[in-house]
Amino acid sequence: MNREDLYYHIKHKKSFLCIGLDTDIAKIPMHLLDLHDPVYEFNKEIIKATHDLCVAYKPNIAFYEARGSESWLSLEKTMNEIPPGIFKIADAKRGDIGNTTQMYARAFFDQMDFDSITVSPYMGEDSVKPYLDYKNRWVIILAVTSNLSAFDFQFLPVGGTDQKVFEKVISVSQKWGTTDNIMYVVGATKANMLEKIREMIPDHFLLVPGVGAQGGNLEEVAKYGFNDHCGLLVNSSRNIIYASNGTDFAEAAREEAKKMQKEMKMLLERAELV
Amino acid sequence: MNREDLYYHIKHKKSFLCIGLDTDIAKIPMHLLDLHDPVYEFNKEIIKATHDLCVAYKPNIAFYEARGSESWLSLEKTMNEIPPGIFKIADAKRGDIGNTTQMYARAFFDQMDFDSITVSPYMGEDSVKPYLDYKNRWVIILAVTSNLSAFDFQFLPVGGTDQKVFEKVISVSQKWGTTDNIMYVVGATKANMLEKIREMIPDHFLLVPGVGAQGGNLEEVAKYGFNDHCGLLVNSSRNIIYASNGTDFAEAAREEAKKMQKEMKMLLERAELV
Repeated sequence: MNREDLYYHIKHKKSFLCIGLDTDIAKIPMHLLDLHDPVYEFNKEIIKATHDLCVAYKPNIAFYEARGSESWLSLEKTMNEIPPGIFKIADAKRGDIGNTTQMYARAFFDQMDFDSITVSPYMGEDSVKPYLDYKNRWVIILAVTSNLSAFDFQFLPVGGTDQKVFEKVISVSQKWGTTDNIMYVVGATKANMLEKIREMIPDHFLLVPGVGAQGGNLEEVAKYGFNDHCGLLVNSSRNIIYASNGTDFAEAAREEAKKMQKEMKMLLERAELV
Repeated sequence: MNREDLYYHIKHKKSFLCIGLDTDIAKIPMHLLDLHDPVYEFNKEIIKATHDLCVAYKPNIAFYEARGSESWLSLEKTMNEIPPGIFKIADAKRGDIGNTTQMYARAFFDQMDFDSITVSPYMGEDSVKPYLDYKNRWVIILAVTSNLSAFDFQFLPVGGTDQKVFEKVISVSQKWGTTDNIMYVVGATKANMLEKIREMIPDHFLLVPGVGAQGGNLEEVAKYGFNDHCGLLVNSSRNIIYASNGTDFAEAAREEAKKMQKEMKMLLERAELV
């Protein structure tokens, strides 16, 4: 999916919601456990109930590795349930040398038709470049994450500059690609930083996790993060997919997604983006 | 496997060789392609031919994701072929928040019985801690990698200190665990840096990729990297596993592994470590 299509879907749905499919077999409703592939059945119902309210789904790949090849198969089947016109993010946080990155590209772009993959920048350009050979696919580079220990290294000052490590990551990595194939992860618990990041990269899409369960504030994120293409994908996972633990789990997920979409609609309208 | 056991196997085998199972279906001998699971059959033969010469195997997980759930199954079956007493490294370079890290721990420690996993430090302590709850399992943190674009971020000077980013990673992260559960990746193409790193962490094991195909020199690595427990695992992948593309591939792999083991034996004896 390219940038224009993504913005088209945001305008059409009045939503920049990404739903995180962090599906843990220990947390899904009991009545699904009798089925052949509970994780897949859960995801299928969640997708059916929410796909008109969100513009992206983001399976957290760790949750599909946790039970081995069987759960990897659940992921493959889940991907086939996502309707066309929805942006698919492999939240994999991979990062390796070039020939290994090519293998990840095969796994997530060729095998499973993801539109994008999250990538850790520690190993530099080699971890990003091979993905950019794929047309209309994206790399989403970790800049600032929303966890507490993000402060261990991301905020170190870089000697001889007025930049921190995450700012250096942004300034260097934006040259590897374009606003049509690179996005950045910016944790929402640090919404005020979005202003500074927007100065550095006014046109890039930002994937913002951490709204909701992790404490971020949607209005703040929109205030500092919007650009003229919206420029934001805001993720919510647990708040939506685990809204109920009963047989009404899909309806409850829809309710929560609807709440977020309504707030997003208001924010998009206020900013005259729709 | 604990530190003492690892050193025991190094002394016993007179080897600190790690063999990288970066098995690409496009590169294995043609005659295997008729079999039901060529990647598994290839790995099985390689392991049978080399397990007395090495102390560790390191499957590069990307290669087993590239073909989806089917190749993930090849990995699971491969793990069952590795005999007891060999250190198993999941070269996964994961790095995420705590609840996700727990899922990776389940995947690699519970499901597949790896002894260790390689981890990218960008997201800080959260990416490491959950693994350390497992007794006798290890996290191998990326410090300096052997690829060219390692220089993009790992060597940035940290303001207000005389350290570079990778040195900060080492000095901060060694406090998260002990020499019994943390190792570091140090790329062999920068062997002279080993001397400085050894000053910082005299007792930790170091995983050294990049000897052979990537240009490192084993004698240099030993000179600067040995400690009184050997303290090194040196990886070779392509040089060994793709030594021949014919029906003699396993024998040829053994020949290459034997060459490395002989040099390692000489170096260990010279340093009076065996």
